[in-house]
Amino acid sequence: MPASRTDHHPHTCDRQLTRAFGFLGKRWNGVLIGALSGGPASFTELCRGVPGISESVLSDRLSELAAAGLVHREVVEGPPVGVHYQLTLAGLALIPVLQDLARWAHENLPEPQPVAAAR
Amino acid sequence: MPASRTDHHPHTCDRQLTRAFGFLGKRWNGVLIGALSGGPASFTELCRGVPGISESVLSDRLSELAAAGLVHREVVEGPPVGVHYQLTLAGLALIPVLQDLARWAHENLPEPQPVAAAR
Repeated sequence: MPASRTDHHPHTCDRQLTRAFGFLGKRWNGVLIGALSGGPASFTELCRGVPGISESVLSDRLSELAAAGLVHREVVEGPPVGVHYQLTLAGLALIPVLQDLARWAHENLPEPQPVAAAR
Repeated sequence: MPASRTDHHPHTCDRQLTRAFGFLGKRWNGVLIGALSGGPASFTELCRGVPGISESVLSDRLSELAAAGLVHREVVEGPPVGVHYQLTLAGLALIPVLQDLARWAHENLPEPQPVAAAR
């Protein structure tokens, strides 16, 4: 059903949207931020918690998220010594937006349908 | 600055997030939805309003957005005859999420820095 015209002025946020999707649309970045929303995690925990990601890609993405100021890398002196990753306040600020986006997808984005057999 | 541990349970929304980014992260889809948030637009208006998109890619993306139920294609009988595109209710429901995402990017995602000259 079409919606009626609204009073939004879309073009003011286009550049920010393009930047956000350029960053978050890169595979794993959004999912990794989601995975860290539960609290600090080690490299191994993240590798296990995000099925399909390889160790080298996980390492690259964590460096990229840290460089963007969204993830903080912390050395735990132990013993045993270890490294924990956790969201910064900037990363944490994204969580409610990601939750709204996930809810929108659940309610509005059609699930891919299996191909029906020809009759 | 690292943020403290929260009580979120992230993995429940991972699959929806992956789907949302798979769809919206595809170049132009999010930006086109943003461009249509101001109300119905013709093909030509969209082509002019989204710098850098080609006519063939715009045509593909509008078909994809229509197939996903986010955009409605309406023939205006005129004269002159024309075609307008507008967001459906499902597409319109995404607008506040996109606005939050743009605001988050503005406040938290570092702008790309020009490469500094070597000293």
